[in-house]
Amino acid sequence: MAKNITARSVDYSKWYTDIVLQSKMADYSPVKGSMVIRPNGYAIWEMIQQNLDKMFKDTGHVNAYFPLLIPESFMKKEAEHVEGFAPECAVVTHGGGQPLEEHLYIRPTSETIIWSMYKKWIMSYRDLPILINQWANVMRWEMRTRLFLRTSEFLWQEGHTAHATAEEAEEETVKMLGVYKQFAEEYMAIPVIPGKKTDSEKFAGAKHTYCIEAMMQDRKALQAGTSHNLGQNFAKAFDVQFQDKDGSRSFVYATSWGVSTRLIGALIMTHSDDDGLVIPPKLAQRPVVIVPIWKSDEEKEQVMAYTNAIYDELKADYSIILDDRDQYKPGFKFAEWELQGIPIRIEIGPKDVEKNNVVLVRRDNKQKQFISREGILDKVKSELTQMQADMLDKAREYREEYSYKIDDYDELKKIIANDGGFIYSHWCGDAACEQKVKDETKATIRCIPFERENEKGKCIVCGNESDGRVIFAKAY
Amino acid sequence: MAKNITARSVDYSKWYTDIVLQSKMADYSPVKGSMVIRPNGYAIWEMIQQNLDKMFKDTGHVNAYFPLLIPESFMKKEAEHVEGFAPECAVVTHGGGQPLEEHLYIRPTSETIIWSMYKKWIMSYRDLPILINQWANVMRWEMRTRLFLRTSEFLWQEGHTAHATAEEAEEETVKMLGVYKQFAEEYMAIPVIPGKKTDSEKFAGAKHTYCIEAMMQDRKALQAGTSHNLGQNFAKAFDVQFQDKDGSRSFVYATSWGVSTRLIGALIMTHSDDDGLVIPPKLAQRPVVIVPIWKSDEEKEQVMAYTNAIYDELKADYSIILDDRDQYKPGFKFAEWELQGIPIRIEIGPKDVEKNNVVLVRRDNKQKQFISREGILDKVKSELTQMQADMLDKAREYREEYSYKIDDYDELKKIIANDGGFIYSHWCGDAACEQKVKDETKATIRCIPFERENEKGKCIVCGNESDGRVIFAKAY
Repeated sequence: MAKNITARSVDYSKWYTDIVLQSKMADYSPVKGSMVIRPNGYAIWEMIQQNLDKMFKDTGHVNAYFPLLIPESFMKKEAEHVEGFAPECAVVTHGGGQPLEEHLYIRPTSETIIWSMYKKWIMSYRDLPILINQWANVMRWEMRTRLFLRTSEFLWQEGHTAHATAEEAEEETVKMLGVYKQFAEEYMAIPVIPGKKTDSEKFAGAKHTYCIEAMMQDRKALQAGTSHNLGQNFAKAFDVQFQDKDGSRSFVYATSWGVSTRLIGALIMTHSDDDGLVIPPKLAQRPVVIVPIWKSDEEKEQVMAYTNAIYDELKADYSIILDDRDQYKPGFKFAEWELQGIPIRIEIGPKDVEKNNVVLVRRDNKQKQFISREGILDKVKSELTQMQADMLDKAREYREEYSYKIDDYDELKKIIANDGGFIYSHWCGDAACEQKVKDETKATIRCIPFERENEKGKCIVCGNESDGRVIFAKAY
Repeated sequence: MAKNITARSVDYSKWYTDIVLQSKMADYSPVKGSMVIRPNGYAIWEMIQQNLDKMFKDTGHVNAYFPLLIPESFMKKEAEHVEGFAPECAVVTHGGGQPLEEHLYIRPTSETIIWSMYKKWIMSYRDLPILINQWANVMRWEMRTRLFLRTSEFLWQEGHTAHATAEEAEEETVKMLGVYKQFAEEYMAIPVIPGKKTDSEKFAGAKHTYCIEAMMQDRKALQAGTSHNLGQNFAKAFDVQFQDKDGSRSFVYATSWGVSTRLIGALIMTHSDDDGLVIPPKLAQRPVVIVPIWKSDEEKEQVMAYTNAIYDELKADYSIILDDRDQYKPGFKFAEWELQGIPIRIEIGPKDVEKNNVVLVRRDNKQKQFISREGILDKVKSELTQMQADMLDKAREYREEYSYKIDDYDELKKIIANDGGFIYSHWCGDAACEQKVKDETKATIRCIPFERENEKGKCIVCGNESDGRVIFAKAY
């Protein structure tokens, strides 16, 4: 176990914070509720951005940028929206040394400002669809910070699309949730369950909200992405109508969807161990570290010649760290790169040079392999691929181990109170039953899974009829 | 001349706004002083980011993210800094429904918040240098908006580095100005003059400021990037000291450097013409548009088969627009893509199919070339390369045409009052002489060029001794 990192078994919450701070992913800032994303953390965000952005573009979306500040009157145009967001806004009252005529809110999300522009841009069916995404910072006031998971300011992307028909908007909402699911599983190695939010958990202003839910190592759920079908709510609030081919006029249909730097918290809590961070290879900006080992100057010369040739071979394909610092011992270096989660470590000592070998250690399973110098690039490639797959499998197995089908309310309460996990139970659809579980166990309905057995049953709370099981869990 | 675009000769300022709005680069927002960057404009920003970010990383820098909001007390720690920036700040006084104990400023620039963190991170010489860059939005209150050139909120990058010695900081300051110069010339095709700002024009809080200056088509100067040597000013303000190898303690040396979405304004004003935007090929996300032309269904079938094969060949290397819309005529399409500045247009009609040709038109010089179907990819490549070079040459020639060596103050006044341009004149170094020129002509000293003749002379205002010429010009 690494120095300065509390074990998960001792204090999970402290373990998480230790990992984030010790691996230099982020730091607390002097501004209440805000964090600093340090280079190690930001590098992962860059990889998330790069890969997600490509997926957005491949599905026909383009990027744009809308103002940070939103007039108070705009926020008030959609009743549910302002009720949901206004209480957590930061408010600008002065600018350029003068009090402002109208207060401006720092965007908690951009539906209102964006739909005020769509009103200018949408006249006819020819202007539709609009498929715009924005990468931006947003702010929702928080006093109790949890690095990456809950901060006042965070970074995210928010897609905002406009469509001529309800069907097209629904199709887009589902499609983008699919993009999130694919990204979470293929890149982040986080298995997720796609489903629909209950009315009490949906986005303020949406017709309905879809989400992907992941299980962390403390068996709590984390919502990793959401996609909202906004119906005509914002089009009506901002009077955005279009003329159709037949000359008729209708309100435009909307969707919005987003993921945030919270994903980095999910990544840490899904994969890391008591020695530090574990980065899935596809999100590692620098997936390999080489640590040469020597005791004498003579050994150094020999080892470094051999190492440099390997470094040159690998760096054509990967961004490699070559840790040839003189002032630190190998053990210290191993621990440091384990803490920072570098997927593959290659150790090269005088004996390896002699035998034309290297030692390769994967960060996820820590197994040592002696591999031949020949074909090292192919071996690194295949190990990275295998590690990516193994991490997803391991996380999926963990989730399945702590997933239960439960039909007895006392049993549900017992599981939530003890180990926690995902509890699949019947629910009648009544918000009162949902609220009762929340009040008594702190567990909420994470989602109504898209894929669920066609199985009638009785609500776990009231015994009324249910069309299928939903997922109850405590959540971040 | 395109519809809806005022000619430069009629009203340069209106021409600029027409280009931005008509080519859908940006739009006015309902929030005073703020703009919306539309997808066509944002695509150029993405290309700027991508290429500059690579240059930053190649010079050893990493990215991070610091909070948007800065406590008022932090801004006040550096006397010149607060004097320069506080009057143009937006101020948050309420958060989460409560008045705040301390007002928070939306960052106008991030030196103060970043140096408050460097205080936590820097203990010894081993922690230096820190080479961090941030891509972010910033806000400086403005009431009179000029799209891209002057808006309250804008996007930029700000590098903030920390060093053990004054020499290293100066080296970094110069190096990053060099990166900006290279980027401006190689990617934006904008020739720039690197130099030093006079004291009255330097950054609030800097020891000295270096800049690159470009000439627009109305002969005004535009500052396209700045790099500041901050000396120990911010280290002293935030008490950031480090222990050196010999055990002694010293304050840390700092630099900061930035470019912003203003560059997009510079790009438009350097290259565009009365028909619309002209994008340098290296910054065009989609550098080629293909417009197939037909009159009958039979022709369409034939032309599209030929076109699709060419499209497939080119799209392996470039992101191509294939404009096969039925409802618009070719002339309309040509005008639209000219307006949007797509570097190369390929026209394909029935006669071209017959002759195994295509028509290629470059956006910058509008020359039509009949080129053979064979080797079309190589031809497109070489035309894009040539266009990039020609645009830089043309802009440089324009600048040289309107650059003057002037030793008589009345003549300086006359040129500024008439055509304008860059006026190289002697200056004694006295701020009073600088101010007099500004008051009487509105021209300022843009920079003391790094490369200037070793030539003694007499100050154009007071006649006192001068060590060399500086550049006077009106500026954006």
